[in-house]
Amino acid sequence: MSAPAARSRAHHGRVNAPDHGLFGELFGRGPAGPSDQDWLQALLDTEAALARAAERAGLAPAGAGAAVTAVARADRFDAAELGRRAVLIGNPVSALVRALNDLVPADAREAVHRGATSQDIIDTAAMLLARRGIDAIDADLRAAAEHTAELARAHARTVMAGRTLLQQAVPVTFGLVAVGWLTAIDDARRELDRVRATRLAVQFGGAAGTLASLGTRGPEVAALLAEELGLPEPVLPWHTDRLRIVQLAAALAGACAALGMIARNVTLLAQTEVAEVAEGGDAPGQGGSSAMPHKRNPVVAVLILGCTRRAPGLLATLTAAAEQEHQRAAGAWHAEWETLSELLRVTGSAASWSVPLLAGLRVDAARMRANLDAAGGLLLAEHVTAVLAPALGRLAAHDLVAAAAARAAARGVSLSEALLADAATAARLRGAGVGEADLAAAVDPAGYLGATAEFVRRALAEHDRIADGT
Amino acid sequence: MSAPAARSRAHHGRVNAPDHGLFGELFGRGPAGPSDQDWLQALLDTEAALARAAERAGLAPAGAGAAVTAVARADRFDAAELGRRAVLIGNPVSALVRALNDLVPADAREAVHRGATSQDIIDTAAMLLARRGIDAIDADLRAAAEHTAELARAHARTVMAGRTLLQQAVPVTFGLVAVGWLTAIDDARRELDRVRATRLAVQFGGAAGTLASLGTRGPEVAALLAEELGLPEPVLPWHTDRLRIVQLAAALAGACAALGMIARNVTLLAQTEVAEVAEGGDAPGQGGSSAMPHKRNPVVAVLILGCTRRAPGLLATLTAAAEQEHQRAAGAWHAEWETLSELLRVTGSAASWSVPLLAGLRVDAARMRANLDAAGGLLLAEHVTAVLAPALGRLAAHDLVAAAAARAAARGVSLSEALLADAATAARLRGAGVGEADLAAAVDPAGYLGATAEFVRRALAEHDRIADGT
Amino acid sequence: MSAPAARSRAHHGRVNAPDHGLFGELFGRGPAGPSDQDWLQALLDTEAALARAAERAGLAPAGAGAAVTAVARADRFDAAELGRRAVLIGNPVSALVRALNDLVPADAREAVHRGATSQDIIDTAAMLLARRGIDAIDADLRAAAEHTAELARAHARTVMAGRTLLQQAVPVTFGLVAVGWLTAIDDARRELDRVRATRLAVQFGGAAGTLASLGTRGPEVAALLAEELGLPEPVLPWHTDRLRIVQLAAALAGACAALGMIARNVTLLAQTEVAEVAEGGDAPGQGGSSAMPHKRNPVVAVLILGCTRRAPGLLATLTAAAEQEHQRAAGAWHAEWETLSELLRVTGSAASWSVPLLAGLRVDAARMRANLDAAGGLLLAEHVTAVLAPALGRLAAHDLVAAAAARAAARGVSLSEALLADAATAARLRGAGVGEADLAAAVDPAGYLGATAEFVRRALAEHDRIADGT
Amino acid sequence: MSAPAARSRAHHGRVNAPDHGLFGELFGRGPAGPSDQDWLQALLDTEAALARAAERAGLAPAGAGAAVTAVARADRFDAAELGRRAVLIGNPVSALVRALNDLVPADAREAVHRGATSQDIIDTAAMLLARRGIDAIDADLRAAAEHTAELARAHARTVMAGRTLLQQAVPVTFGLVAVGWLTAIDDARRELDRVRATRLAVQFGGAAGTLASLGTRGPEVAALLAEELGLPEPVLPWHTDRLRIVQLAAALAGACAALGMIARNVTLLAQTEVAEVAEGGDAPGQGGSSAMPHKRNPVVAVLILGCTRRAPGLLATLTAAAEQEHQRAAGAWHAEWETLSELLRVTGSAASWSVPLLAGLRVDAARMRANLDAAGGLLLAEHVTAVLAPALGRLAAHDLVAAAAARAAARGVSLSEALLADAATAARLRGAGVGEADLAAAVDPAGYLGATAEFVRRALAEHDRIADGT
Repeated sequence: MSAPAARSRAHHGRVNAPDHGLFGELFGRGPAGPSDQDWLQALLDTEAALARAAERAGLAPAGAGAAVTAVARADRFDAAELGRRAVLIGNPVSALVRALNDLVPADAREAVHRGATSQDIIDTAAMLLARRGIDAIDADLRAAAEHTAELARAHARTVMAGRTLLQQAVPVTFGLVAVGWLTAIDDARRELDRVRATRLAVQFGGAAGTLASLGTRGPEVAALLAEELGLPEPVLPWHTDRLRIVQLAAALAGACAALGMIARNVTLLAQTEVAEVAEGGDAPGQGGSSAMPHKRNPVVAVLILGCTRRAPGLLATLTAAAEQEHQRAAGAWHAEWETLSELLRVTGSAASWSVPLLAGLRVDAARMRANLDAAGGLLLAEHVTAVLAPALGRLAAHDLVAAAAARAAARGVSLSEALLADAATAARLRGAGVGEADLAAAVDPAGYLGATAEFVRRALAEHDRIADGT
Repeated sequence: MSAPAARSRAHHGRVNAPDHGLFGELFGRGPAGPSDQDWLQALLDTEAALARAAERAGLAPAGAGAAVTAVARADRFDAAELGRRAVLIGNPVSALVRALNDLVPADAREAVHRGATSQDIIDTAAMLLARRGIDAIDADLRAAAEHTAELARAHARTVMAGRTLLQQAVPVTFGLVAVGWLTAIDDARRELDRVRATRLAVQFGGAAGTLASLGTRGPEVAALLAEELGLPEPVLPWHTDRLRIVQLAAALAGACAALGMIARNVTLLAQTEVAEVAEGGDAPGQGGSSAMPHKRNPVVAVLILGCTRRAPGLLATLTAAAEQEHQRAAGAWHAEWETLSELLRVTGSAASWSVPLLAGLRVDAARMRANLDAAGGLLLAEHVTAVLAPALGRLAAHDLVAAAAARAAARGVSLSEALLADAATAARLRGAGVGEADLAAAVDPAGYLGATAEFVRRALAEHDRIADGT
Repeated sequence: MSAPAARSRAHHGRVNAPDHGLFGELFGRGPAGPSDQDWLQALLDTEAALARAAERAGLAPAGAGAAVTAVARADRFDAAELGRRAVLIGNPVSALVRALNDLVPADAREAVHRGATSQDIIDTAAMLLARRGIDAIDADLRAAAEHTAELARAHARTVMAGRTLLQQAVPVTFGLVAVGWLTAIDDARRELDRVRATRLAVQFGGAAGTLASLGTRGPEVAALLAEELGLPEPVLPWHTDRLRIVQLAAALAGACAALGMIARNVTLLAQTEVAEVAEGGDAPGQGGSSAMPHKRNPVVAVLILGCTRRAPGLLATLTAAAEQEHQRAAGAWHAEWETLSELLRVTGSAASWSVPLLAGLRVDAARMRANLDAAGGLLLAEHVTAVLAPALGRLAAHDLVAAAAARAAARGVSLSEALLADAATAARLRGAGVGEADLAAAVDPAGYLGATAEFVRRALAEHDRIADGT
Repeated sequence: MSAPAARSRAHHGRVNAPDHGLFGELFGRGPAGPSDQDWLQALLDTEAALARAAERAGLAPAGAGAAVTAVARADRFDAAELGRRAVLIGNPVSALVRALNDLVPADAREAVHRGATSQDIIDTAAMLLARRGIDAIDADLRAAAEHTAELARAHARTVMAGRTLLQQAVPVTFGLVAVGWLTAIDDARRELDRVRATRLAVQFGGAAGTLASLGTRGPEVAALLAEELGLPEPVLPWHTDRLRIVQLAAALAGACAALGMIARNVTLLAQTEVAEVAEGGDAPGQGGSSAMPHKRNPVVAVLILGCTRRAPGLLATLTAAAEQEHQRAAGAWHAEWETLSELLRVTGSAASWSVPLLAGLRVDAARMRANLDAAGGLLLAEHVTAVLAPALGRLAAHDLVAAAAARAAARGVSLSEALLADAATAARLRGAGVGEADLAAAVDPAGYLGATAEFVRRALAEHDRIADGT
């Protein structure tokens, strides 16, 4: 089994978890969206790392860090009870610290929550969840990109109608369409990777960003905490400088934008009247309808859109929330937590669904050709004009072709037929030395693809370059 | 115990429910936000009502409706399992219908899902959840409004600084502030009531809005279904006409707007340096800080803002999702379900928190007066000018007062003192017959309240009128 | 010329105005979006009405109101100069009042800006512009609705494929599609009318909502001001209660939602491969392409979408801006002005474009039938099953039809052919007394339309009821 | 005159341009927001560069590029007329090309619009405008950052109250606050610079992204076009891959987020009751009020917020618009143009206003100290406990201080006084060797600043590092 397929299977296995509920398989597929238990564990991981950092800085006795780490397991805490106590200060950290203190030996308590304020713990935990989410999303996008690259290679020469404003325009190939998708996915990955590497960071500032209760030792503890968690240490505590959150959210919304564009195009290409692609489905029977046996619903693409269309509003909420007051915001900060979780969740779900979508996509090359031919060569009018121009002059060629195109459209014949059926036109073509073979070549879509092959080659090479680099 | 207090207590009791998790007490307080079980029950309520309607229309044997209704209880279904099967068609209804069929006697199966498509069930269930959510929100807003009206009555004459652009401007009373809040809450309620009464509606159209599988009986069944559920019957199935959802979302976001404005003002009035109001807290110890004993955090207002700031983004998502295709949308519809749930949830939570906020608000009338007096009468400069104008002429009065105000600000004395301390000015005042008592009256904030009392009276009368009507 | 056509022409005439610029014909068509001059005039209209109200209240000499009104014409003021001076207080009203005072006779100056603060003038002017905008939008929507009703009447029986998730599902008629559009437009109009009648209101509160400088005369002047402007008088000044703005914005965004849905469907139905509708165009040559003579771009629908897709973000901005501080907001209020203007503008433009879109829409009934027939009766599988069920039993009928449908899809034959070509199946049908004529009837789309005719009738009746009422 | 001041003056000069209108000085200050003329020139610059590229590729006679460039000046075209003709195809490019052809010599016409489609021209022009806008924004942000760095240096030791949830918490310095602002501005700049360097790119794909009309010469022309414009050449035409737009928009919205946070804090610190900062104003009289001489409105900060609060909604629109169809989107693309212009405009205006805001900010160190002292040492309770702990034990110290803090708050005395006034407590302190001098040191805010100095140093060093690098 290929790695992407194995991963996809792994996700599918995970969905047996009981807490995904009625809609979670649709919009919360994959592990990117943090559950309550994930949040709790991330808060505990932060507290444990801080305890180890405090010990390393000599602020707590030897063994204190290990003692805290040993009990910092979500299954030893009652999330619902912490949630109830959260109303006292407006977040669950104070109750968590109290419960954690109850579990650790007395001499390790000096290490617990040392120097920290609740925002330090929540913001750092959010960064850990973001890192985990990005990793999951990136793995899925990488698999989706590989499948897309395969589609592009397989269909580099599969001619189809290019469509602008939903109207057939001039020929393209499905390979060109696929590298457009590929480039978008790779760009989205590059952005996520950049945010992961440079914009996630530990938050540790104490009550108001001065780490006053640690005296002059604050920066040392902050550096050790960052090291323990494998997160960058920022120049400053960033409690009310939320650009990191905005940029993280924008990168996630960018991934949704790429996937939404792809899914949108799949739904359009899969329309009954177009039928150029069909979903393979992720599970037996997916997309079928017992009442309507002719239907082959693009369920996976639809679910991706059901996820991606929620990203812009969530991004707007997080961006608006960046206007934060003084040393801790009154409400704007609180509005971030679940919103960021939702954005990670829907982005992760869209990414997870994109793997079976692109792995299983069935491409009907014959139908692509048939749809193109249905226009009777009219998509090549521009090309025919160019072919005739040297012999007839540009203006005359244009007028001749335009008139023939009008006749072709009116009578339902092909452009070539319309040109040749008109005696005067046929005579002019003969006089100019343009034969039927020339005309046939001019209306061959494969002969009017311009830079298509070069663009496909370039995009695949760029993709390979990126894939090698990661 | 008053009704609002009892209700508030009831909510508080409910929060012991284990599924609220780490953040649910903060942003999902109260019953307005539907849980998975609520969704499941609403789907089942719709199916049960449809079965009864089918029986009443003679399309199913006597007793079929009751048989379906008897088993249509969420606790008999496995939401997670339905969720897993939902991936086949992109929603859980098909799996639900299958599971429901398994539970009903064979001869009642004719009544199950009769004539319906999955969208009919989901959209109608959403309307039931919206109605339930609005009822919960409305009850909380009604209680909050009553507490606000009490504040307004108690403080109709409590003078404080009116502030524009966060600067003290001219005097108002806290009663006037409170009726501003009251009017906003009442307007939000009026809008929710209107949506509940006129915009919620049953959705029933079958596969593509024709109810074809019911022959000519469709409208009859639709009318019976509406009757069974107590929901209005629309002129047409509204599967891809989503104005109802947009208007519902706007009414919810409007309630958030009203509550956010109030909470924002509470956080501002509660600032250490202003200290004109303080939260009573919803539970012992709420808002306190053991590390910082002087702090009295406005936790409830902060949590309200943590909810309300999420509404605009959710509203944008639902409004954008209204661009739906043909007879069922590919993704836009799916993006609505969880978004609407979230919007109901955060609005419900904000409304629920508003009850203890407004019931417990502590108003410090002495501090209000002290903050006003700290400006040394400068807020009354406009009034002093008006008092002097008849005697001195408007322009001369203006110049005299402006100069005195500048001196007052520079020397840290009151406006009266600045006027009288300048010998030339004092002489002019004497010459114009303006005595110290006149000046004292002119700088008395209570003497420059204009229509304040009338506005408070009017707003309370309007509130009473509405309250009587409901 | 019909009234809607005349109106449409009138708009077209107006677009010769030089200030629409490079994009204004596309996204700012029609008069709903206020220009700078419109804003200036609305501010002046408010000041003039206030002067007349002050005179009527006896606060200014006889003739003062008329004197102010006489000079309150935008062409007498320099918007750019007012704009430059606006930076002093953050809005242009103070500079406007100064300039207005310069123009009126000395004894009328008592009437100028009497009792008002700059927010009173701007908010009330915004209400005047909203009323004007709604009137323009409503007139266009009314015309669009009439054209849509005509389409519905003309095509009540024009059979076409109903499509769900962009796949052909079961038959509908284009008349049913059209009444879906009609109902959406009518609902959007009803909402706009409601907002116009009940939510627009004069704003008049003075420096901090007390009208203190008018002593006890404030409410009287407010009532007269409302009367002068023909706007409702609110219970209270609403300076920082912005629900009116939220509701206005939601009604505008609702209109965009309705029009966006329609335009989206036109672009889909106009696709080369579907070709069931085409735009008539608003001007000769619109939608054509000289380079690609076969293309018939749905330019008008595209422009509508270019407008409507901007509404959700603008609505989110206005909703978020409703969290306003104390007696005048520091920034949130300022964010409203241009945002509301933009929302009026794009909604007005979408409404204006909807008139030629719906007036000129060309419906190709033959192509609709051909697209339906291309599925070879498979859309009627549900119906065939229902027809066979009485004779064969429900389950047997289902299995028989499902198998035949699979054969039909695989071999590219019609469902009837697939049923009859199989000897065993044909025998069972004969045995059950189901003849070829029965089958033919069962696969006739016109025979499986359920409540379509009734729904069309109902929706048109409801539309007529509304149209009569206005 | 310093460079930033000169730049600020330059902007101010520019605002005399007549087309800024009623609100443009407020929300469209500075050159970042493109006017119609700017758009027209950018379109022409793109066409001219393409003509030169075509000539260099040998596709047009020598001199053609120069001939086109010579006439490609906005003042030779009529934007309003182009706008009127734009309705034919839904954008103004076709009309522009026609008008351009009319102006160039016949033999240069081969170079005009060679190989291009209208989207190529509009998208590339948008990139040029984005580059210009970013340059303007960056210059303003650089100046604002310098002023902020000066504030940080000047006030590194100016002690003030740190505030969380709008309540005083523990001491900070204004220098620490200022480096928080500085870091946010520098991060926003870094993001804009990255987008400018790596995400802006020429768009050139022809009718459907194949450059078919150029045969195999397309990529060569594309490379030359990129070179002519100084824009990166992308791997592929990006007509319906809109991640570049999303990332550009996110970087702009990020700049707004940083500026909005700063402006918000200025409005809070400038409140009458806090009065720790005041705006210097950008022009004589700005922020003053003749009616209310005591008011000093933070007009500049308010205007910044009036701009920045519009960014999240505009960003949401652009992100939602990234779901584009096939080879050219039907509406989503069109929704981008004015939205991107608006986002550039409000970001540019916020950045432009930030220069006088930060250059002129008046910091009242004495008031900062007074506000801190008003809490009577209670902000130092945490510190006092830490000081007493070694002598008394941690728990005893905590209880002693908590009790004293409660007495202090109740009686309105300082924490030290409360500790010493209680005989038993005083005795314990004496017994533990804690003298009055120790207590005085413990309640000195300057003694409880933790890492503040180090953080300020670090952030300024990082700023200098960046500033040197640019």
